[in-house]
Amino acid sequence: MATPMSRRDLEFLLYEWLDVESLTSRERFASHSRDTFDAVLELSADLAMKCFAPANKIGDAHEPYIGDDGKVVLPDEVVAGLEEFRKAGLIAASFDEELGGMALPTVIRQASSVWFQAANAAMSSYGFLTVGNANLLAEYGTPEQIDTWVRPLVEGRYSGTMCLSEPQAGSSLADITTKAVKAGDGTYRITGTKMWISAGDHELTENIVHLVLAKTPGGGPGVKGISLFIVPKFLPDGTRNDVALVGLNHKMGNRATTNCLLNFGDGTFSPAAEPGAVGFLVGEEHRGLSYMFHMMNESRIGVGFLATALGYAGYQASLEYAKVRTQGRPVDQKDPSTKPVPIIEHADVRRMLLAQKAYVEGALAFGLYCSKLVDEAATASDEERDRINLLLELLTPIAKSWPSQWCLEANSLAIQVHGGYGYTREFDVEQYYRDNRLNPIHEGAHGIHGLDLLGRKVTMQGGAALTLLAERIGATVDRAREVPEAAGYAEALQSAVDRLGKVTAHIWSCDDPKLALANATIYLETAGHIVIAWIWLEQVLAAHGRSGDFYDGKRAAAQYFFRYELPKTGPQLDLLAALDRTTLDVEPSWF
Amino acid sequence: MATPMSRRDLEFLLYEWLDVESLTSRERFASHSRDTFDAVLELSADLAMKCFAPANKIGDAHEPYIGDDGKVVLPDEVVAGLEEFRKAGLIAASFDEELGGMALPTVIRQASSVWFQAANAAMSSYGFLTVGNANLLAEYGTPEQIDTWVRPLVEGRYSGTMCLSEPQAGSSLADITTKAVKAGDGTYRITGTKMWISAGDHELTENIVHLVLAKTPGGGPGVKGISLFIVPKFLPDGTRNDVALVGLNHKMGNRATTNCLLNFGDGTFSPAAEPGAVGFLVGEEHRGLSYMFHMMNESRIGVGFLATALGYAGYQASLEYAKVRTQGRPVDQKDPSTKPVPIIEHADVRRMLLAQKAYVEGALAFGLYCSKLVDEAATASDEERDRINLLLELLTPIAKSWPSQWCLEANSLAIQVHGGYGYTREFDVEQYYRDNRLNPIHEGAHGIHGLDLLGRKVTMQGGAALTLLAERIGATVDRAREVPEAAGYAEALQSAVDRLGKVTAHIWSCDDPKLALANATIYLETAGHIVIAWIWLEQVLAAHGRSGDFYDGKRAAAQYFFRYELPKTGPQLDLLAALDRTTLDVEPSWF
Repeated sequence: MATPMSRRDLEFLLYEWLDVESLTSRERFASHSRDTFDAVLELSADLAMKCFAPANKIGDAHEPYIGDDGKVVLPDEVVAGLEEFRKAGLIAASFDEELGGMALPTVIRQASSVWFQAANAAMSSYGFLTVGNANLLAEYGTPEQIDTWVRPLVEGRYSGTMCLSEPQAGSSLADITTKAVKAGDGTYRITGTKMWISAGDHELTENIVHLVLAKTPGGGPGVKGISLFIVPKFLPDGTRNDVALVGLNHKMGNRATTNCLLNFGDGTFSPAAEPGAVGFLVGEEHRGLSYMFHMMNESRIGVGFLATALGYAGYQASLEYAKVRTQGRPVDQKDPSTKPVPIIEHADVRRMLLAQKAYVEGALAFGLYCSKLVDEAATASDEERDRINLLLELLTPIAKSWPSQWCLEANSLAIQVHGGYGYTREFDVEQYYRDNRLNPIHEGAHGIHGLDLLGRKVTMQGGAALTLLAERIGATVDRAREVPEAAGYAEALQSAVDRLGKVTAHIWSCDDPKLALANATIYLETAGHIVIAWIWLEQVLAAHGRSGDFYDGKRAAAQYFFRYELPKTGPQLDLLAALDRTTLDVEPSWF
Repeated sequence: MATPMSRRDLEFLLYEWLDVESLTSRERFASHSRDTFDAVLELSADLAMKCFAPANKIGDAHEPYIGDDGKVVLPDEVVAGLEEFRKAGLIAASFDEELGGMALPTVIRQASSVWFQAANAAMSSYGFLTVGNANLLAEYGTPEQIDTWVRPLVEGRYSGTMCLSEPQAGSSLADITTKAVKAGDGTYRITGTKMWISAGDHELTENIVHLVLAKTPGGGPGVKGISLFIVPKFLPDGTRNDVALVGLNHKMGNRATTNCLLNFGDGTFSPAAEPGAVGFLVGEEHRGLSYMFHMMNESRIGVGFLATALGYAGYQASLEYAKVRTQGRPVDQKDPSTKPVPIIEHADVRRMLLAQKAYVEGALAFGLYCSKLVDEAATASDEERDRINLLLELLTPIAKSWPSQWCLEANSLAIQVHGGYGYTREFDVEQYYRDNRLNPIHEGAHGIHGLDLLGRKVTMQGGAALTLLAERIGATVDRAREVPEAAGYAEALQSAVDRLGKVTAHIWSCDDPKLALANATIYLETAGHIVIAWIWLEQVLAAHGRSGDFYDGKRAAAQYFFRYELPKTGPQLDLLAALDRTTLDVEPSWF
């Protein structure tokens, strides 16, 4: 198979553009250098290709099932690959040294994990969820909880999940019904059913640490009553907790990640006299959702990377195919006795490759940009941290949803480049497409992020976040105006950003939340395209003055984005500015 | 499952809009009436739901394989369903009465078959290919060939294929290498390998009639050397012809249609002293491709219907789900103790339903419009027939590619409406999405239709076809200007059509085919959106003056199309008018 990710592109983005080496001047990262970064990236690339990539098709063809003993069965290759990954110690990479970690910057950890996501998306989720789980507990857990749960998570001996959704409540967490009641010993008893729990059961690790949202008495209705609990598969004394696997979901793709319906406290395993699974409260009661957002925001950027990685893998595969597959002749070559040419010679194939390149490299760059913001926030003064976090809050819905939409489109183009072969399971691209279709659904469905962006993020603190973004884009535009190959893009981008600001103000001037939010998804997609145009302009500036194929490719992809993609925001902004009521006025009975 | 197609919509399109009853005043269709049309449609709906729908998931989960005896094994439910279909005699429906047919108009046949396509896309292909195959032979075969092959095809005892592609030649038929050599008895001996042959082998029928493109000596290079042959699985004397199944392709979807690699004349079954499979020439040597286009044009419109049917089925399923699934509250309802609402109450869900409705009903209407043109051409004066066929030539690439693109997008939206459930195989929509991904690939890949439309269809006869289309659209616009709810759409459509004409002229003024065709796919997509806007305007006019939910729904979907979709053509036309060189100037080494 083609290498599913590009070392050269990562090098460009990390060192030539984002200057991540500068992070080593900050105390937290002082033990690092470009050498240690490169060592992690090199190890990741090698390990991903050796242990994850070969199991990708196997994990897809042989989806997990529940064996006669009630235990989850995964293919041997998946189990063995994940054990190799665990042994390499990469889960610990970005944790503090006192937790056994390497204090690696988040941006390097993401650049590391994108290799695993590209090589085998479904297998990558186990580590991804474990890191997010441990990060949350490291932040909000007691010292004892950190010792009991975070250390083995960081070592990879335990794995983690996030248990939010229930069969009747996915997007609307206000409606979860899982309950937690305090027991005499200070622990809680959890009863309820959780749905869509990725990595919710398996035999890969000694224990599974579920982070479970449940309602405790007295917290009021809706999300205010939600608390967060650690509910392990096995209790600290080794007995089985009452967490039962009810079923595995059969998915279109992403199959090697088990996805589970779990019952908590249904009596299948009753470790305690009182009914219910034993849970340990995290932080304070009724503040559970705010803690969970710590993991959710990280997961959302992570899902953006997952979508990006799959898009990238498809791009690389279709690029390789387009260079070797011969078919037809140039449109101005009418002599059929001439030799067929590689399909990369055809304009439409180049369009499909350029589109993929613009989507996947744009998404990767943006994901790394956001990750570096996380590192900057973690090492900044209080005031600066608040500003960075405000910007991150604004960018997170885009970091999740834009790659989920456009890198899926990239996978469709990768199939198209392959023709009929791309539709068969003998090639890799159809699986990428199936795997990637998950990403606009989980970690907040696409439309939820539109409501989050337009309904919360752009209005919070009087619109301060959008102002911050506009300032950053403005700074890029100012630099780009001085650079001949970037000046035209700078004007187009500034014009789009200015209009976005005006349209945003106009939307909220209507004083009717229903009308304002009626086209929130269009708003999300428009803002996403403008942000990625900015990221492409940044890359053009980073490539300025450098010659060679790689830099010419960056300039060509940027040109594609500014000519084929950014103009799509014009009619979208028109629609938003018109406060269109089509979706409000249609009656359910008319369908 | 939800009914995958709408009787009410078909009734509206056929009778209230297209007035297909008027066809019965033409001699060919004089034996028919609305009653006979309705009887066929009723039978089709019932049979599709009874015999095709229940086998849809089964055929997907149990894909065909080659048994120990070398024969293809399909699930019993698929075999039984197809036998019921055969017995119903619908394959004969549109053939002449002297061939045992009912002389049913094509538009009614398509409205009949769309039920089967929506109920089980993969199973529908067997009949679809058989009809196309028999139609070609009825047109170009000798009386003896018609007796030998067409009659049993029409009865459904035999089935048909089209064998064009080879492993090294798909889009570029000039490069096929299958050879045909004349034998002493006037028949031919065929040797070569054909790839992607749908329904290429199975045990469903007594015989399989392959229509094979092969090169005969002396025909010159490229497509000029291509002749067309009947190559049956079994020869008229009952002996096995030398056509060997080498392998079945393993596809992402559309699995119950076998898709085969076939060897012709490799000696596996050697019925003749001379090596090679026995073939019977159709028509004259070296004119094979022109005959095959008869079947290909029909197949292309048929693929458009297939994509439409899958999109329609997903729309119906997600509509049903959106009405019963409850989740969350209106954005202006902040009290979490109120009951959750059906998700159809949320604006973004309505947007996704309206988009699907606009795509699938627009595509269905357009497909039926084209089918009625076929009937009109078949019963018109010579001059009128030439005009209609010219228009059909122009519309065919759009009829194939527009539904393949946008009804696939509809399927993605149908998944999104279902949330996580839509990503599981317990629901229907993920299969529709996988099945439908085939349609932009086969019967001419998406990009090929762009080249066909911009490179051939709009330039032939001095641009006469585009003029014809503009006249028809102009007539609709004139009527719409008199209708209050349509007048605004009329102006927007006329403006887009005018601009398309100017841009087309500008493109070809450049005198550089490479540059002119560099964005042919964008041209195809732009022209498609304009044509479907026209079809929606037609529907608004047909609904004018009628009240009730159904007609309000038509008006709402048209409003969606004119506000959300048609404006997308603005930046596309800008790009085309700029004769953008991005895809030409990028070098393969830059990727």
